[in-house]
Amino acid sequence: MRMAELSRTSGVPVATIKYYVREGLLPRGEVTTSPNQADYGPAHLRRLQLVRSLVEVGGLSIAAVRATLVAVDDPAVPLHHTLGMTIAAAGPGTGGAPEDAAQREAEARIDELLAKKGWRPHDGAPGRQAAIDCLATMRRVTGTRLDSVLAPYADAVEAIAEADLDTVSALTDPEERVETALVGTVLGDRLLAALRRLAREHVSARRFPPAAEETS
Amino acid sequence: MRMAELSRTSGVPVATIKYYVREGLLPRGEVTTSPNQADYGPAHLRRLQLVRSLVEVGGLSIAAVRATLVAVDDPAVPLHHTLGMTIAAAGPGTGGAPEDAAQREAEARIDELLAKKGWRPHDGAPGRQAAIDCLATMRRVTGTRLDSVLAPYADAVEAIAEADLDTVSALTDPEERVETALVGTVLGDRLLAALRRLAREHVSARRFPPAAEETS
Repeated sequence: MRMAELSRTSGVPVATIKYYVREGLLPRGEVTTSPNQADYGPAHLRRLQLVRSLVEVGGLSIAAVRATLVAVDDPAVPLHHTLGMTIAAAGPGTGGAPEDAAQREAEARIDELLAKKGWRPHDGAPGRQAAIDCLATMRRVTGTRLDSVLAPYADAVEAIAEADLDTVSALTDPEERVETALVGTVLGDRLLAALRRLAREHVSARRFPPAAEETS
Repeated sequence: MRMAELSRTSGVPVATIKYYVREGLLPRGEVTTSPNQADYGPAHLRRLQLVRSLVEVGGLSIAAVRATLVAVDDPAVPLHHTLGMTIAAAGPGTGGAPEDAAQREAEARIDELLAKKGWRPHDGAPGRQAAIDCLATMRRVTGTRLDSVLAPYADAVEAIAEADLDTVSALTDPEERVETALVGTVLGDRLLAALRRLAREHVSARRFPPAAEETS
């Protein structure tokens, strides 16, 4: 197909496609009869969709997209590393948290949790730092009132991670895998937050039932 | 205590405390010996901490804080409503999603899920709309590849909601309850996102083990 059709099919504007080609994120189309016309196939469409997801859903920089694509294309890079890299690039940022007692105690609690669960994140895992920062902020605001949620949260996210990996493992196309993992990670956080509010309304209504005369 | 001490104890600047008092979010201190000095007690400290949490952690507007405090102070308002209101005010916003096929199908899937779980959110629940918007975006990007996570996600967030409500139910002070519910909701989303990344690294490493010669 011509670039105009690739644009229509993918929903990505022609100018954006040209930008991705210039940045080396999308291979040039194959030159056919006319020197000014290039032909794009299903592989281009698939790659274009992945790049768009990485940029628009994942919020990855062009450099991070490029690194992800190199990993996707290199059969020597284990899938586990590619997924981990993509997820880390789209992960929550870690702010410069103050180094106070709450921070040190939160670090000890998170490391205790990791040991108990048998999770061994890589050195400098942003998830570990983000978890410590969150717990420290909770402790600064509410004391240790919220510490009790840590263990049930860890069990719940383990079930969530199993469901995520079930979905990704069922796919054979490496581009589909990376795209699904990324979209599932980034939009999955938002979906979980939304479902969590619905679940809380349900559990809260069950535990604190409104009085009989109320209509809502 | 004097306002300066209230500021030191709470960590809230004097100018901010004065602003909260002017906005009616914090009662004036009791006038004692000198007409220019007011006395603040433990109730002021507690209320100040709640206001700060609502504003800084929850990102609530002054009007939303005021409405929350009215509900906290009114024994006729059931706790379930107060918590629901606070959580809704701090909840994820809903964008103007396009009304396309993906949106309609996502709506049908979410309502199917709610029926299956027996969750009956109130009319216009922001969680329902946010869940529909997320699922529709996932469908636009990946087709139905991610639909299979819905049911396990719902089960996991129900366990999370039970843990959240366990924590809140254990508290007797209504201000502590609202504060804990709010901080747990807002920071809890971030904590869950962080723990989810750690869990995924763990599950991913187990399912896609690196080759034996690799060191990581």
